[in-house]
Amino acid sequence: MITRREETGLVIWLTGLSGAGKSTLARLLEEKLAATARRVETLDGDEVRENLSRGLGFSKEDRDTNVRRIGFVARLLARNAVVVLVAAITPYRQSRDDVRRSVEDEGIRFVEVFVRCPLDTLVERDVKGLYLKALAGEIANFTGISDPYEEPLSPDVVVDSSTESVEQSAAKVLSLLEEPRQPAESSKPEAQVRAQM
Amino acid sequence: MITRREETGLVIWLTGLSGAGKSTLARLLEEKLAATARRVETLDGDEVRENLSRGLGFSKEDRDTNVRRIGFVARLLARNAVVVLVAAITPYRQSRDDVRRSVEDEGIRFVEVFVRCPLDTLVERDVKGLYLKALAGEIANFTGISDPYEEPLSPDVVVDSSTESVEQSAAKVLSLLEEPRQPAESSKPEAQVRAQM
Repeated sequence: MITRREETGLVIWLTGLSGAGKSTLARLLEEKLAATARRVETLDGDEVRENLSRGLGFSKEDRDTNVRRIGFVARLLARNAVVVLVAAITPYRQSRDDVRRSVEDEGIRFVEVFVRCPLDTLVERDVKGLYLKALAGEIANFTGISDPYEEPLSPDVVVDSSTESVEQSAAKVLSLLEEPRQPAESSKPEAQVRAQM
Repeated sequence: MITRREETGLVIWLTGLSGAGKSTLARLLEEKLAATARRVETLDGDEVRENLSRGLGFSKEDRDTNVRRIGFVARLLARNAVVVLVAAITPYRQSRDDVRRSVEDEGIRFVEVFVRCPLDTLVERDVKGLYLKALAGEIANFTGISDPYEEPLSPDVVVDSSTESVEQSAAKVLSLLEEPRQPAESSKPEAQVRAQM
């Protein structure tokens, strides 16, 4: 249970396609966690890119560099008792796996939240008009259209913004935080797959 | 007086030439501050460059980008009650001034420490053998030799590693932290100079 300011921080990493609802969920989680008197900081993909990775593009290499930088900052905050919410597409499994390991190596809990939403629904919603452009071939390296998204094999939580309200999704994440930390987290299937490669 | 973990964080920014003693002083300060039960984090120039700015060089533009990134991370930490020690050459006055303003704009105290050491002494010491190489023209953009260092016009503290022990320097910085924050900090001469430009 996370209630006191003195406890260790943790990293809650929201991964999913553009428009799936990562930032919306992060905002609600931030609000609810802040109300428990915890220190909370949200690292939102776009904002972090502007501040830490201007000049980087969307090739696999540049995306990986960006994720490593977010991971570095998240670790610095979490080891100083901050609950860090990261909202970033993070399309590559290996990259998410690496960041999880770097966080857990410091004894910090890492919670991977897969913010799922079917592509059809995203194209239909297309809040920012990006899917239309990507489908027309006007945006290169657009995750889900012209660039891969590797779904998490064993995320800690799966939420689905096409079937749940953001309140329901937030409740799922928060209820996980109330559970004691699993001792066998490092032997999760996703980590095992990686270790065997 | 900084003793309780609940208080606001602050940023202590050590600027000075390579080899002047920034990292050594930062380490001692970290030790002493951690002993007061404060959360302390040191952002050391080389380490941060590796984690946040790999690929950037030492042109004025790249140095400024690097300093902005350090400033961004320092702010995130300090607004979560961490005492942040930055040890980075930060040769440009404008760049230090910008980072001070961005920190103070969030209501966070910024303490600029000028770690002075005469160039002669640095060349004589030349711990890493870099000055010899720079003087031989083998290192481009080497601060103090082939690249400028703009000394602070009104730092909060000046320490001098050629005349003081690191213990004495640390004591100077710590005694400043015990003083109440100056209300007129934003109208420091250095800031005024910038504002008039």
